[in-house]
Amino acid sequence: MDIAKYFTGIRLNNSPGSPLYQQIAEIVTQKIKSRELPPGTRLLPERDLAVLFGVSRTTAINAYRLLEQEGLVRTRVGSGTYVADQPAEEKEVPWAQLFKSYNQSYASSVLREMVSASSSRAGIISFATGSPDPHFFPVQTLADLFSNHISSASKADFGYIPTDGYGPLRWSICEMLKGKGITSRQEEVMVVSGSQQGLYLLSKALLEPGDYVVMESPTFLGAIQAFQAAGAKILGIDPSDTHYLSLLEDYIIRYRPKFLYIMPTFHNPTGSMLPLKDRQDLLALAARHRLVIVEDDPYGDLYFEKAPPPSLKALDSYGGVVYLGTFSKILIPGLKIGYLAAPAILIKKMSFDKQYVDLNSNNFTQWLLHRYLEEGWLGGHLDIVRKEYKKRRDAMARALRRFCEGVEFDFPGGGYYIWCRLKEEGTVSRLLHEAVKNGISFVPGDAFYASAALDKEFRLCFATHDEAVITEGVRRLGKALSAVKKEEKESPRPLPAPPIV
Amino acid sequence: MDIAKYFTGIRLNNSPGSPLYQQIAEIVTQKIKSRELPPGTRLLPERDLAVLFGVSRTTAINAYRLLEQEGLVRTRVGSGTYVADQPAEEKEVPWAQLFKSYNQSYASSVLREMVSASSSRAGIISFATGSPDPHFFPVQTLADLFSNHISSASKADFGYIPTDGYGPLRWSICEMLKGKGITSRQEEVMVVSGSQQGLYLLSKALLEPGDYVVMESPTFLGAIQAFQAAGAKILGIDPSDTHYLSLLEDYIIRYRPKFLYIMPTFHNPTGSMLPLKDRQDLLALAARHRLVIVEDDPYGDLYFEKAPPPSLKALDSYGGVVYLGTFSKILIPGLKIGYLAAPAILIKKMSFDKQYVDLNSNNFTQWLLHRYLEEGWLGGHLDIVRKEYKKRRDAMARALRRFCEGVEFDFPGGGYYIWCRLKEEGTVSRLLHEAVKNGISFVPGDAFYASAALDKEFRLCFATHDEAVITEGVRRLGKALSAVKKEEKESPRPLPAPPIV
Repeated sequence: MDIAKYFTGIRLNNSPGSPLYQQIAEIVTQKIKSRELPPGTRLLPERDLAVLFGVSRTTAINAYRLLEQEGLVRTRVGSGTYVADQPAEEKEVPWAQLFKSYNQSYASSVLREMVSASSSRAGIISFATGSPDPHFFPVQTLADLFSNHISSASKADFGYIPTDGYGPLRWSICEMLKGKGITSRQEEVMVVSGSQQGLYLLSKALLEPGDYVVMESPTFLGAIQAFQAAGAKILGIDPSDTHYLSLLEDYIIRYRPKFLYIMPTFHNPTGSMLPLKDRQDLLALAARHRLVIVEDDPYGDLYFEKAPPPSLKALDSYGGVVYLGTFSKILIPGLKIGYLAAPAILIKKMSFDKQYVDLNSNNFTQWLLHRYLEEGWLGGHLDIVRKEYKKRRDAMARALRRFCEGVEFDFPGGGYYIWCRLKEEGTVSRLLHEAVKNGISFVPGDAFYASAALDKEFRLCFATHDEAVITEGVRRLGKALSAVKKEEKESPRPLPAPPIV
Repeated sequence: MDIAKYFTGIRLNNSPGSPLYQQIAEIVTQKIKSRELPPGTRLLPERDLAVLFGVSRTTAINAYRLLEQEGLVRTRVGSGTYVADQPAEEKEVPWAQLFKSYNQSYASSVLREMVSASSSRAGIISFATGSPDPHFFPVQTLADLFSNHISSASKADFGYIPTDGYGPLRWSICEMLKGKGITSRQEEVMVVSGSQQGLYLLSKALLEPGDYVVMESPTFLGAIQAFQAAGAKILGIDPSDTHYLSLLEDYIIRYRPKFLYIMPTFHNPTGSMLPLKDRQDLLALAARHRLVIVEDDPYGDLYFEKAPPPSLKALDSYGGVVYLGTFSKILIPGLKIGYLAAPAILIKKMSFDKQYVDLNSNNFTQWLLHRYLEEGWLGGHLDIVRKEYKKRRDAMARALRRFCEGVEFDFPGGGYYIWCRLKEEGTVSRLLHEAVKNGISFVPGDAFYASAALDKEFRLCFATHDEAVITEGVRRLGKALSAVKKEEKESPRPLPAPPIV
């Protein structure tokens, strides 16, 4: 490249405030920044530069030295001076420009925040996350199973395994389901990396943007988010409404939803239970319309008095129910193992998708869980946690009656949650604000609605803490509640937020 | 509902071949199937039915009995006869109708088939799957670490943990990367459920349908599939081409690709290595165009003679390189742990997406792997596998020279693979056919191309089997090769497949 041409006709001026070497450096800088001289270009030798501008060689050397200090050129000994790779201010890759645009900007990261908030602040009692009590995690049993069985294990079990799950575990899950009245062959059962992944794979297999999904209102936040992220529109129904089934039928006819997502047993967040008769009627309606039902059942094993009625899957005679189970709530979240029982063709489709997502779920915990189930440890564990969580539900209900006048709630027969409503003045937003000040947290009910809610409900999880901590937490909640009531009486309601214009 | 109206004006005929009860049953069947009588409808009492059709009560009873046998009605003692829930032939949910349509129907499930094929057929020696030898899996060490550390563990580590990874493991990964010249803060590192999930999350964060991605050609099948599934179009470049960088620059200018995916160290499938000078030139070009580079490095630690040059990530000065690592190839696939080192904003974006996919990667193996790394076990393990895989590479190269005349190959300096080309007549498709007959399998080269290939290349993995098995496998391959050559000489080439019209 004839470099000299870029500098022909340029005159330096002789003002004392601007040394010649700086003027030359500035001229070269402009040529570099405008990319007339792209990175890698070999510049004129110092001698030629001096001649071109009619300056001393020292001035030329100083010009290049200045450019080098600024990172615009580099000198290779014995080779010459080159334009450096990239001016510093242009180096950064503008990452945000590259991101795929979101169609769920409205969906705040509530689930995630709940998880990190509840584990992060010291001194706060969290009734927010639906987390089992770590004290009950049978990690020692798992460590022993690992030690006892590893020497006779086939090491290939820790290599690449099938996408739909570790064979022996699928078998034990089929056996476990048999005990719940669900008859599934192995090809009708699939292991997933937690039930969140089950929801994700269902969305991936079934939902196109604009599809409708019917969900209970309120319902599990993670499911709302998963379906909305897939572009689905949510239709809400309230199973406690007496016209529930006919409203559902209207939805079916009006919108042809892809499926109904429902948690009929110890519902999250309400703790409610769909009675047998309602299950049968729902199935008859679904069968008539060939409506697919996704039955999420994380809490069904956690009953405190009598066992719940058979699951929709167990009652299903038209092959339309997909059953989603998990070991996170009854055993340990950290196993990251959930499962789906569904028609073989859907399992095949989902495991095809899963190979892109993570190839297969974790081998170690699949292998461990199989041994745990096979040796029959689960039954004893369930006996313990049922007994303990029952005591905690009772303690929480007792404390609510004692400390939280003006809060009404249903008494759940199992699961993790008590769903509360403010009967009187005040909003849950205000209550949460006061509660955090008092060292207690919970999830406001609005989080469980896909559309607008009244800011009057909230969810308390009674599984995580023992009775003493629960009682103390609810006492603090009562204090927060009194503060809210006092504030309501003393000061007028805050003005509605002004529009953002 | 006035049922009688549905039957008014219908006459029975008196032909002897068609008994009256059958005629009545047929009439009712039609009304049920046409849904004039929907499920749950209470039918006329037998007495009224008899009066309506002018038949005996026995005939009416027999009509209902027949309908009941056919499952169309059911009788509730003391209550009456009802239309049953759903005629049997309409019961099945037509699942395939519900599936989301695919934009990757062309992408066959090759990766998955490889995994299941290689583990399923007895007697076959598979050089197909890129699987480490299970004999080297340090499962006993892991079981011991589990037992030794579990009593002092925080049980909360097995509950819900952050989406971007178990904190201590992220720290040990940062430390490990420091040893490779990569300086990353913890927020710049993210744990994923195997590097396949890393590719998936990158696709999810960055790729919109129609985006371009530049990849080496050939390259890792799983990456091609992940990007194509996200709707990306693949642009192929061949780094062994002398004009490689200027071709890449043409692509950049012509298509503005979202990123370049590259495996510069012990490439899959070719085993090749990008020299230091080429790495520097590539980075200079990328920095100039602010091109994002996704550097996949599963094999970098598995060098047999001298250590490879620094990774692109280590050399990166413009912040455009995303580094993808995994413990699957150097340690155990079953840990299902990979990681990404990337700018914090990209990590944040991907971990936001990950919460839908699986909330967090497996706690147990993150916890175990942290202990494994912290106690410094990895170095010793790498020493063993480097030594062993080097012997295997040598054995395979020796056997190829001895048994497989007409096959040429590059001698890789590390990794898992030898990439072979047929110099003479014959196709790899034919060779694979003969090979499987001879009890040996491999992956045809075409699988690693996003576009057309010449059916002349294939990949052999030397990591899975010991030297004796490798030698025997290559001997069988030589037999298959001779059979192909003989066939080529004796019979003319098969006619090209006729078009499907």
